[in-house]
Amino acid sequence: MITSTSNQQVKNLIQLQKKAKFRNEQDVFVVEGIKMYEEVPQERLVQTFVSESFYNKKKELFPISGPRMPVVLSDQVFGAVSDTKTPQGVLCIVRQYHYKTDDLCKGVQKNPPLLIVLEHLQDPGNLGTIVRTAEGAGVTGILLSDDSVDIYNPKVIRSTMGSVYRMPFVYTADLIDEIRKLQKTGFTFYAAHLQGAVSYETGVYTGPCGFLIGNESRGLTGEAANAADVRIKIPMCGKVESLNAGVASAILMYEAARQRR
Amino acid sequence: MITSTSNQQVKNLIQLQKKAKFRNEQDVFVVEGIKMYEEVPQERLVQTFVSESFYNKKKELFPISGPRMPVVLSDQVFGAVSDTKTPQGVLCIVRQYHYKTDDLCKGVQKNPPLLIVLEHLQDPGNLGTIVRTAEGAGVTGILLSDDSVDIYNPKVIRSTMGSVYRMPFVYTADLIDEIRKLQKTGFTFYAAHLQGAVSYETGVYTGPCGFLIGNESRGLTGEAANAADVRIKIPMCGKVESLNAGVASAILMYEAARQRR
Repeated sequence: MITSTSNQQVKNLIQLQKKAKFRNEQDVFVVEGIKMYEEVPQERLVQTFVSESFYNKKKELFPISGPRMPVVLSDQVFGAVSDTKTPQGVLCIVRQYHYKTDDLCKGVQKNPPLLIVLEHLQDPGNLGTIVRTAEGAGVTGILLSDDSVDIYNPKVIRSTMGSVYRMPFVYTADLIDEIRKLQKTGFTFYAAHLQGAVSYETGVYTGPCGFLIGNESRGLTGEAANAADVRIKIPMCGKVESLNAGVASAILMYEAARQRR
Repeated sequence: MITSTSNQQVKNLIQLQKKAKFRNEQDVFVVEGIKMYEEVPQERLVQTFVSESFYNKKKELFPISGPRMPVVLSDQVFGAVSDTKTPQGVLCIVRQYHYKTDDLCKGVQKNPPLLIVLEHLQDPGNLGTIVRTAEGAGVTGILLSDDSVDIYNPKVIRSTMGSVYRMPFVYTADLIDEIRKLQKTGFTFYAAHLQGAVSYETGVYTGPCGFLIGNESRGLTGEAANAADVRIKIPMCGKVESLNAGVASAILMYEAARQRR
């Protein structure tokens, strides 16, 4: 059992939790909690860590060899490496994914591809929720501008509730260029925009298509909104000026899913 | 200018931010940020506080008398009373609302009432997002079991983006009894349920109706699900077991809004 935070493995875990730079250098990320441990794809699992008290309660969950065999940390050390205030007591180092744009376009249940395109999305909770809802709605992939929040940020991972293992995603330095390339292959893009010309439910989302969602405060850039085929709005009553980005994405994705059923 | 955190007003503000007990005793809550300051209804405003540096930059925002005339706090003291890591520099004490069930049922734009009923909802961000989305979707009121998170929690207030000033809400010790009373007046209640008999889009939400949303981990209690007229489900692809409570609520509220347009 490791009982000191100056242990080299422990120091490394703390760095991996905090900095994208370390995660990318080692080509891994960290997941926490029982659900994330149980769903981690075998071939991606690098190493498992548990707290002493969790291990004593749940020994039957763990094999005695291989990467699922856990390294035991004292509760105090586990608390220091965990990103949560009340850790469940298990975390894993997992190898990163490396998708290509083609991977985003593989249809689900014979439906044509459905993309979510995120420009400069900043809030980790929003991204995690979008990844989770996207899987639920049958979205085939997520395209992100490379100034968006890191999908391997622990808060993002936590809010994906496991969908990060299954939802293909690509970060790109040139979002507009990727949109144009996909349009040439038959995609229609709908920009969620406060000055949208039409209400979102008038769009037909049964072909290959994607929704463009902008930054939480500033929305889409003019370039991204212009690159879209149609600007759509989500009607709002009262004095509401905009919806939360995760909520707006969900309404659009589930309207597409409804049309596709 | 107040420069010490042992000042009585400052101590009180810190208590109001932290504890529902103090907020309820004084019948007030605290709002932060420029948007929340600008939208606060005049008759509810008790007192305004600003940070020194914000006041020096934005003097023109503030009158020189009345409750909008701010008490200036040193930046360090403002940091101590703020609930955010990077405070905007303005906060207000606002009088609490006291709605009755009737207030939840006043139609918007001649539409019949549309309610959101929350049972044991725990996450402040979820409640705030639901209040914001509810106003956008034309919901007329929110009914909550009294074991739900306090709507005056600073994190809830922040995520409402001002909708807390306009969305009627009632906490009740007996949610089932309130549901039954409303059913007798013609309401139909739809329980969001993983084992829903029908997909949510088959429901007709153009009459007086409400959606029941349960706790983030455990969903609705059997009692609440049984009290509903219909159990509806939101179809999910992939391996997604459930959606975020704020997302699920948004999908249902916006389906009702779509049908009502």
